[in-house]
Amino acid sequence: MRQATNAAVGEDCAVYFSRDFSRLPAVALLKGLAAKPYDLTGPAGLSPERISAYRCGAAGFDLLYACQRLDDSVLAGLQQLADESGAVAQFGMMKKGAVLNRIVGFASEERQVLHTACRDLFSDSPQAGEAAAEARTELAKLREFLGELDSGKIANSKGEVFTDLVHVGIGGSDLGPRALYLALAAFRQKGRRVHFISNVDPDDAAAVLAGLDLSRTLVNVVSKSGSTLETLTNEELVRAAFAKAGLKPKDHFLAVTGKHSPMDNPERYLRSFYMFDYIGGRYSATSMVGAVMLGFALGYDQVLEILRGANEMDQAAEEPDLKKNPALLLALLGIWNHNFLGHQTVAILPYSQALVRFAAHLQQCDMESNGKSVTRQGKDLAWQSGPIIWGEPGTNGQHAFYQLIHQGTVIVPAEFIGFRHSQYQSDLLIKESTSQEKLLANLLAQSLALATGQVNDNPNKRFAGNRPNVILLGERLTPYSMGALLALYEAKVVLQGFIWNINSFDQEGVQLGKKLADRLLGHFAGRRNDPQYSGADRDELGWAMLQAAGLVDK
Amino acid sequence: MRQATNAAVGEDCAVYFSRDFSRLPAVALLKGLAAKPYDLTGPAGLSPERISAYRCGAAGFDLLYACQRLDDSVLAGLQQLADESGAVAQFGMMKKGAVLNRIVGFASEERQVLHTACRDLFSDSPQAGEAAAEARTELAKLREFLGELDSGKIANSKGEVFTDLVHVGIGGSDLGPRALYLALAAFRQKGRRVHFISNVDPDDAAAVLAGLDLSRTLVNVVSKSGSTLETLTNEELVRAAFAKAGLKPKDHFLAVTGKHSPMDNPERYLRSFYMFDYIGGRYSATSMVGAVMLGFALGYDQVLEILRGANEMDQAAEEPDLKKNPALLLALLGIWNHNFLGHQTVAILPYSQALVRFAAHLQQCDMESNGKSVTRQGKDLAWQSGPIIWGEPGTNGQHAFYQLIHQGTVIVPAEFIGFRHSQYQSDLLIKESTSQEKLLANLLAQSLALATGQVNDNPNKRFAGNRPNVILLGERLTPYSMGALLALYEAKVVLQGFIWNINSFDQEGVQLGKKLADRLLGHFAGRRNDPQYSGADRDELGWAMLQAAGLVDK
Repeated sequence: MRQATNAAVGEDCAVYFSRDFSRLPAVALLKGLAAKPYDLTGPAGLSPERISAYRCGAAGFDLLYACQRLDDSVLAGLQQLADESGAVAQFGMMKKGAVLNRIVGFASEERQVLHTACRDLFSDSPQAGEAAAEARTELAKLREFLGELDSGKIANSKGEVFTDLVHVGIGGSDLGPRALYLALAAFRQKGRRVHFISNVDPDDAAAVLAGLDLSRTLVNVVSKSGSTLETLTNEELVRAAFAKAGLKPKDHFLAVTGKHSPMDNPERYLRSFYMFDYIGGRYSATSMVGAVMLGFALGYDQVLEILRGANEMDQAAEEPDLKKNPALLLALLGIWNHNFLGHQTVAILPYSQALVRFAAHLQQCDMESNGKSVTRQGKDLAWQSGPIIWGEPGTNGQHAFYQLIHQGTVIVPAEFIGFRHSQYQSDLLIKESTSQEKLLANLLAQSLALATGQVNDNPNKRFAGNRPNVILLGERLTPYSMGALLALYEAKVVLQGFIWNINSFDQEGVQLGKKLADRLLGHFAGRRNDPQYSGADRDELGWAMLQAAGLVDK
Repeated sequence: MRQATNAAVGEDCAVYFSRDFSRLPAVALLKGLAAKPYDLTGPAGLSPERISAYRCGAAGFDLLYACQRLDDSVLAGLQQLADESGAVAQFGMMKKGAVLNRIVGFASEERQVLHTACRDLFSDSPQAGEAAAEARTELAKLREFLGELDSGKIANSKGEVFTDLVHVGIGGSDLGPRALYLALAAFRQKGRRVHFISNVDPDDAAAVLAGLDLSRTLVNVVSKSGSTLETLTNEELVRAAFAKAGLKPKDHFLAVTGKHSPMDNPERYLRSFYMFDYIGGRYSATSMVGAVMLGFALGYDQVLEILRGANEMDQAAEEPDLKKNPALLLALLGIWNHNFLGHQTVAILPYSQALVRFAAHLQQCDMESNGKSVTRQGKDLAWQSGPIIWGEPGTNGQHAFYQLIHQGTVIVPAEFIGFRHSQYQSDLLIKESTSQEKLLANLLAQSLALATGQVNDNPNKRFAGNRPNVILLGERLTPYSMGALLALYEAKVVLQGFIWNINSFDQEGVQLGKKLADRLLGHFAGRRNDPQYSGADRDELGWAMLQAAGLVDK
């Protein structure tokens, strides 16, 4: 039904599905410019004027991009690339409900992409009204539930309040929520802690459960399909632990799942919250997937602040001028470094310990979205799609892998993230500077050092420079700014996907491994039921692997 | 003095410093073979015989390498490369005390490389006797100290035992120890917990201290030089918290540092343990850098088990036949993928949640060692040195970035790590398999799927295959096997460095950023002391960055 009402939007979008990246005039132009990229080293490279001019801001963040290997002619080419690919136009259509999760002419998911609707709550006329209304309904349920927890109306069998919540999910139901929780732990409500179980490795659940008073613990099970192997397995492990402790799971377990999924069962859960098929897992942190856990930890108002920040950035991402749209600019700088200068990876380097798992979230958000090899018309790509994303917080990384970034033979485009003020505001003046100043000085110094390099008579002390990087700066890491940062990267990823003309919203690449794993699990079950069982005749490679691994005998 | 007694070993080694990788006959041979790498897809690709034959084991680990793009002729070429570069011979000389941390003809560290001596404790004739004796001395001090903690002889001012230890360090003083602690948390002694502070971000220390009873907490400050900015700053933050709590830091603080460093001060520390200049930070996890914290957490005997496993692998790494030496084989497979097939990264994918930070440790161990661009004679490299290392535990990664690994346009060589049995042995049979079986089935399935790929009429469901990967399998993740795994990767890294003819033991690439950060800190101090201060005339780029970042006004 929703698809029908948005048919017009979908049709408008189809025109972009035939715009192959490699045939865009801007691509030929940029290829030419890439033959001699801007030189950041030497006196003519970086200047105060350039540093001041190459800045762009929105929703509380400034993007400093003077340390990229480009000049105004490249920027013009990148603007042309954005325009020719219709990236921003498609972003707008996405927000209105276009069916962008599809491969034309082949079986595909055929879905809208409406994670932005989860936070389109702050105006009277949301862009995708029906989805925004569904988001409001779930938020109202959450607000009521959290109120009942606060008032003690919902409590354990002894009438005690719940102090802990175990969040059980994997992939998008884990990485984004976990990154946000760690980022915002400084804002936790007193007496509330959250724990995460994701891996099917039984040691993951065992380690978490070992330290908990289950009688005062809620369990939040998150799976859109209600059938994720790891999550259901871990749910059973946790239910068994509750049963063993003489507790009724029904009084402790929450579900976040799709309507009518196998998990949508009020007999098994204290409360259920819904997510919808127009929200991809890796874009779902601002849906109930993240909001239930974050609401428990931070309170409802802080959840709204996250949504408010994300919505602000979603709006900024519709600006067609790259100089005023940090998400678009970040997307285009990435394409410049990846497709034209040939760098295969991007390092995400937050100078904020609280962002310790943000890169891990972006690995999914970016690589699962854009690690593709066919166009939206099912043709083999003749160009590179998404890069490899990796990274760790600074200054830690400086003492780890920065050696290679400065002096290695592989070039690593870097995205630094920092904040002018700390979260806890607990700091000391040591040797004439605060820790926060030390942190920021290191961030800026790394950016400069990578760009300018250093000459030296000792070849081992030479730095070639010309290592491209950007700095993304916010005022302070709060629920609002975290929401904006999350949305900034979500928008970067989908804008890149639009430019590459790929479907950033499916994940067919995870299916083959699942299929083969099921087959191997069949062998374990077969061997358990019949010691004479052999899988050699029906699956010779899988069986040979089990033998070589010493997991079955001959 | 030690250098003099080992002069002969050093001289023997110098012959290898002129063996440039690109001129080795094996390199020309391998280049030819790389033009048409082995095809793993289709019926002739992978076979049960190949899977069974391409295995190699040592110290409790099996390396399965059938899913690499090579055949026996490539293996012969790689063996030739190992021999021509003298990799294993140099490894032996390293263990005996050769001065391998040097650049001939230029100022350099001129040090031995003797992390292997820390664990060469299980025979009557250690290879580097003096270093092994120093390791024994420190271990004896540690044993005595831990005994006094256990007996209650050392306790807090109320006579209570210590329950918590805060480990303060960064880089090699943090990543390896932290990875080991998390890997072995299942083996903790009852009532002992460890916490880590590393980042100069003041929120890191604030978040850790927020949850602690300082009166029952030890603080272990780790810095070889005794002058690491982040560590000393965090030490001061923690000392201030102790003072505020009315506690005497001297009764709680331990030091791990170099003899005669500024931190080697018995008036400030309850106990001091030493490390030595022949142990590089990133190779120091089995020295006191890791052992003090691990001894507190796990007990002395378990520390010895770690050392025993590492020593076993150190011995195995001296085997010249690549088919019997997993460290050498892993090094050569990495070089095949990186230098000959052109893949810039390596993904470390442990199917063990306890290894959650092992890839982060390897990022330092590998990238700081081999992210270099000059030979050991100070010549610019004409070949690629170390790759980018990244990764996360499976099955989590499957729900994150595996999409790109399977179907992206960038090829990612993968190193899977798994164990036949779980740590906690707390598991359930759900749908005819245990969680541990699900974990292992997924590991093997991913390896197969990446290698063989899949044909399909729907282009979006095609998998090209030929994604090279290996599987490293152990029996169970224990202190012993963790030691062996750590040493396996340490050996891999240094063997690669020997083959590339680079100095894997210095880190000049971290210096420029430090220098520029100091300059920027001067501006913060200047502005604090004088509101009229401007850095524009003495450091125009740094000052412009501060302005653009909104950290100083005009």
